[in-house]
Amino acid sequence: MSYKIGVDISGGDYAPEEIFKGAVLARKEYGEDMVLIGVREEIEAQARKHKVDLNDFTVVHAPEKIDMGESPATSVRRKKNSSITIGTNLLKEKKIDAFVSCGNTGAAVCAATLLLGLIEGVERPGIGLMLPTREGVSLVIDVGANVDPKPMHLFQYGVMASVYYELVFNKENPSVGLLNIGEEETKGSDFVKNVHKLFAAAPLNFTGNVEAKHMFSGKCDCIVCDGFVGNVALKVTEGCAETMGKFLFDTIMKDPLGLFGLLLIKRSLRKFKRILDYAEYGGAPLLGVDGVVIIGHGRSNSKAVKNAVRAAIHELKRDLTSQIKSKINGILQDEKFKQSMIA
Amino acid sequence: MSYKIGVDISGGDYAPEEIFKGAVLARKEYGEDMVLIGVREEIEAQARKHKVDLNDFTVVHAPEKIDMGESPATSVRRKKNSSITIGTNLLKEKKIDAFVSCGNTGAAVCAATLLLGLIEGVERPGIGLMLPTREGVSLVIDVGANVDPKPMHLFQYGVMASVYYELVFNKENPSVGLLNIGEEETKGSDFVKNVHKLFAAAPLNFTGNVEAKHMFSGKCDCIVCDGFVGNVALKVTEGCAETMGKFLFDTIMKDPLGLFGLLLIKRSLRKFKRILDYAEYGGAPLLGVDGVVIIGHGRSNSKAVKNAVRAAIHELKRDLTSQIKSKINGILQDEKFKQSMIA
Repeated sequence: MSYKIGVDISGGDYAPEEIFKGAVLARKEYGEDMVLIGVREEIEAQARKHKVDLNDFTVVHAPEKIDMGESPATSVRRKKNSSITIGTNLLKEKKIDAFVSCGNTGAAVCAATLLLGLIEGVERPGIGLMLPTREGVSLVIDVGANVDPKPMHLFQYGVMASVYYELVFNKENPSVGLLNIGEEETKGSDFVKNVHKLFAAAPLNFTGNVEAKHMFSGKCDCIVCDGFVGNVALKVTEGCAETMGKFLFDTIMKDPLGLFGLLLIKRSLRKFKRILDYAEYGGAPLLGVDGVVIIGHGRSNSKAVKNAVRAAIHELKRDLTSQIKSKINGILQDEKFKQSMIA
Repeated sequence: MSYKIGVDISGGDYAPEEIFKGAVLARKEYGEDMVLIGVREEIEAQARKHKVDLNDFTVVHAPEKIDMGESPATSVRRKKNSSITIGTNLLKEKKIDAFVSCGNTGAAVCAATLLLGLIEGVERPGIGLMLPTREGVSLVIDVGANVDPKPMHLFQYGVMASVYYELVFNKENPSVGLLNIGEEETKGSDFVKNVHKLFAAAPLNFTGNVEAKHMFSGKCDCIVCDGFVGNVALKVTEGCAETMGKFLFDTIMKDPLGLFGLLLIKRSLRKFKRILDYAEYGGAPLLGVDGVVIIGHGRSNSKAVKNAVRAAIHELKRDLTSQIKSKINGILQDEKFKQSMIA
């Protein structure tokens, strides 16, 4: 029996074409059933353009679209026929096994929270991001689902990330670090100090504070932060990489020798770009909701969509939702941890 | 009459040598009086080593040192004879006109706040950072002085940054943006939404939210954020630039052609490095304290120290402290702004 993966064809900067192509690629590569959720006419037009037989897919008509700038809560409440609302409802009714959307992130988070509900023991969902590091990949959570969190939310993110990392990357007892402005436990805001206390008392491989400059070192498998800080860190990385690339290119182009040099390192530059390419890592898991939801980058191309589907399949094969539930409730029942909460 | 600039010879990763050399360079280049605050024997040893006549300088013996990892409040309270405490006291007693330290940032902020006090109308000091952008320089405040701020603190940072930018960079009515995770005013945490309201009501060139990925675009002259977020953004930039450089270098070195290419772009790479070099921008002004204090990067070399002294002279020549006082109190008395505070 194969999994049914729902894909939001209407969401993303390059929707519907790149999303459609990504879903087609995913079906070919992973052999699972793809459920295409979007405007029927648009899906049919894409199928004609790319000579794809729609009989191999399930098409679910979702006439409404939620734009990137729309208010999440309002759009989910008002647009009952949007691809995000319909997709999430299909997941709730178990007509699909996972839902992938590259559309309005806030709306996807909001729909999942309202319609699927949360895993028992989890108070808020968090978006996990795969950050390429010098050692491999670190999972950073949260990068924007929850911008007004409580310390307990961050603690739960750490537990969920640790379960995810262990199951998806096959690493026993992965390390969990807390993003902070210094390594000593006395450093940081009152908020992070309180989060630190929760982690220190829990049966987890907590390795203490991680400074932002060490995020890319791969020292920590999972890095926990509040959604505002995580989103800023992520966007600064994007902006910094882009600006540095342009700066460097401009400088090199002004030097006559530079142009020749550039031609000689072209192959390396391409390889380098691939290491940093977010599309390789697919989407970001929305952890904590009671169902498998993958949030794709707004700029996703077909490869990113295909890899987001792969991320969904990984979660399904490892039964991640149940594993998170059992781990988080185990910790909440842990005597030492309970004592520390009272203290 | 020349200014007397106090320099903390004991603070910084490369103290005392690089700091001493920086102070000597600064005297030569700017012709102001340099007051060397540190362990007398160490200063004398440096003078012998670099064949510097100490009769051209004032030396103030400060036998104690505050290490980088020490708790700021405790060290300032206990180490009365540290270079940071003595230097700040000299500034308070008007025996020097400005104080430059590359030592423990928290201790320098704490000493300045306790000993100098704050400018009337300012509730917390903030550290401003000069960020190189594609258009020139943006002043980002706060990058770590205040990690548990109230909305009013960030508003005051915006006012101070705007005065600084106008006077030091000679730009009339500089733009002020608020670092946020989206451009719409409904975006972000409750905290930043409240800061947004304060800015929107004030007679300032407030241009709204700035996304972190646009920090390097130079769209905004001044960028306001809380000290935790600002410090993370700054450190992510450092980590990202370093990691990208190493990644790229490793990739190129694996390719036989790459090595030749690298030789050809070497000159450009050096030029590029200079654009990004924090040492060019000197130290970071500690805005809000009643006196001119410049915080240097812990990794400061002699050039960075010299440029930090230049930053201090800029502030003194433009009488920044008084200008901030008059601007901030003008705004706090502004009728429209007062109305918005009541509403």
